[in-house]
Amino acid sequence: MTAYVLGHKIPDSDSVCSALALAYLKNAIGEEAVAACQGELNPETAFILDRFGLEAPLLKTSFAGENVYIVDHSDRALSPDDLSEATVLGIVDHHKLGDITTSAPLECWIRPVGCTNTIIKEMYDYYNVEIPKAIAGVMMSAILSDTVIFKSPTCTDLDIKAVEALAAIAGIDDYKAYGVEMFKVKSKVDGTPVRELVMRDFKDFEMNGKRVGIGQLETVDLSVFDSLKEALQADIAQVKQEGGRHSVCLLLTDIMREGSELLVVGEDLTMVEKAFNTSIIEGKAWLEGVLSRKKQVVPPLEKAFA
Amino acid sequence: MTAYVLGHKIPDSDSVCSALALAYLKNAIGEEAVAACQGELNPETAFILDRFGLEAPLLKTSFAGENVYIVDHSDRALSPDDLSEATVLGIVDHHKLGDITTSAPLECWIRPVGCTNTIIKEMYDYYNVEIPKAIAGVMMSAILSDTVIFKSPTCTDLDIKAVEALAAIAGIDDYKAYGVEMFKVKSKVDGTPVRELVMRDFKDFEMNGKRVGIGQLETVDLSVFDSLKEALQADIAQVKQEGGRHSVCLLLTDIMREGSELLVVGEDLTMVEKAFNTSIIEGKAWLEGVLSRKKQVVPPLEKAFA
Repeated sequence: MTAYVLGHKIPDSDSVCSALALAYLKNAIGEEAVAACQGELNPETAFILDRFGLEAPLLKTSFAGENVYIVDHSDRALSPDDLSEATVLGIVDHHKLGDITTSAPLECWIRPVGCTNTIIKEMYDYYNVEIPKAIAGVMMSAILSDTVIFKSPTCTDLDIKAVEALAAIAGIDDYKAYGVEMFKVKSKVDGTPVRELVMRDFKDFEMNGKRVGIGQLETVDLSVFDSLKEALQADIAQVKQEGGRHSVCLLLTDIMREGSELLVVGEDLTMVEKAFNTSIIEGKAWLEGVLSRKKQVVPPLEKAFA
Repeated sequence: MTAYVLGHKIPDSDSVCSALALAYLKNAIGEEAVAACQGELNPETAFILDRFGLEAPLLKTSFAGENVYIVDHSDRALSPDDLSEATVLGIVDHHKLGDITTSAPLECWIRPVGCTNTIIKEMYDYYNVEIPKAIAGVMMSAILSDTVIFKSPTCTDLDIKAVEALAAIAGIDDYKAYGVEMFKVKSKVDGTPVRELVMRDFKDFEMNGKRVGIGQLETVDLSVFDSLKEALQADIAQVKQEGGRHSVCLLLTDIMREGSELLVVGEDLTMVEKAFNTSIIEGKAWLEGVLSRKKQVVPPLEKAFA
């Protein structure tokens, strides 16, 4: 029976590229697998696939009765709504361990590294499978994206080594220059509807029974948001209301300045102020050095909500 | 900060031996680690450690404020009561994915193989660390125990290959003969209090909100239980009562005949009859071919309770 390989809701480049890379590997070792994604590609991911000539994974949101491999998450909130009716054969992830459970033994390759594709590179090595040029290109791109070209505190030596090896296979001599080019696409905001920006990389978290949505927009120059900030603030208030959320945060991350402007709405902002040891003024705060939602935003918020 | 490596409550040989093996590996790669166990050794495990000249892990049940690696389980019901106050750095396991969650990224090496030590063998290979003779001996023993000397349906080619490699390191020429010797110790029941037998390898499972306890006793000759069966039945009724359990099963597994006699008490035995497609007569049923609690008992029971 064919297995589907799928990343989280509102897929980012790591979710899409790791689904493609893992599906290829599974087929190479004799397990039929098809890459899937739970939503449309964001502009950065579309750029990556186009650059290396790969098709987008199958768009699919229901997996009842199917065999699945989960990549880039282990939380029910980010997985398909009917996941409990599917059989999870495996999980490859680099986040905290979420609340997905299974009723049969499975394989989990979970590591505290910067990107799922770094772990999939390890899997290719383990199974001694050659990585095709295009797959290497998208894997490398995802690692550069997730580690903010190695600047994120989530980046490890394994991520850097993986990028170096994958860049050699993909034939990309100056992968840092390629990374900046990619982030310029990621930063593109003009002409994009405000809701699409808020939702471009948005995840819900359950914190002590409260739903907290956290979006992130990464840019090479924060000033692109100057004219949009009020509209973004109005929209996250909307998003909070619509989803019955306690709070919604939107991180405007400047990867060159290495910090994030936090836009936030919530029932009670004292938890957020406590988490970041800062004052929220007019729904905003500058978080110096904060680049990683996973490592620098979710843990302190969870602690403050606990 | 030193990390503790610990297996599940009511430790079996895999929990104890994998804690020892992983703690050694972690120290070898520069991470300070101490093997721990949550309870006294059972006779089989004591035999194994004695055979290869290793000390028992530290007996410890509280881990608040500590860093821990979890081996051989991923369920809160089997982990220390204060696990939520500890930091889980990693999980190495071969069971279904349980309900332990973390608030920070971690490493998980989870594989659908017969024994945790098979995965730890893979980790030694990954880190290119030489396995000491005694550690190889206890790892091999745990795999022989968990796979019932390769007879269990949970046994995979990887388990067999691991045993072969570990036996060579440990200097055990006839590992099957050693395995039978080990199972004779495991089968020893004379003079042991009935409650100790019931609890020797006992795990609680949450099934659709109901607590189901399942113990297993493996023997090379089922007739050793003939004179004990009534006392065992009376005692599991006691255990059911004391722990507010819906049901308690005790599997008397004959590894030579390759099947298990099921002793069971419960609020409603129709679920158990449905799970195994059999009739329970006087609290007993013969389950032909059933050797593995993990693969042949828990999944059908969970399905019947769902």
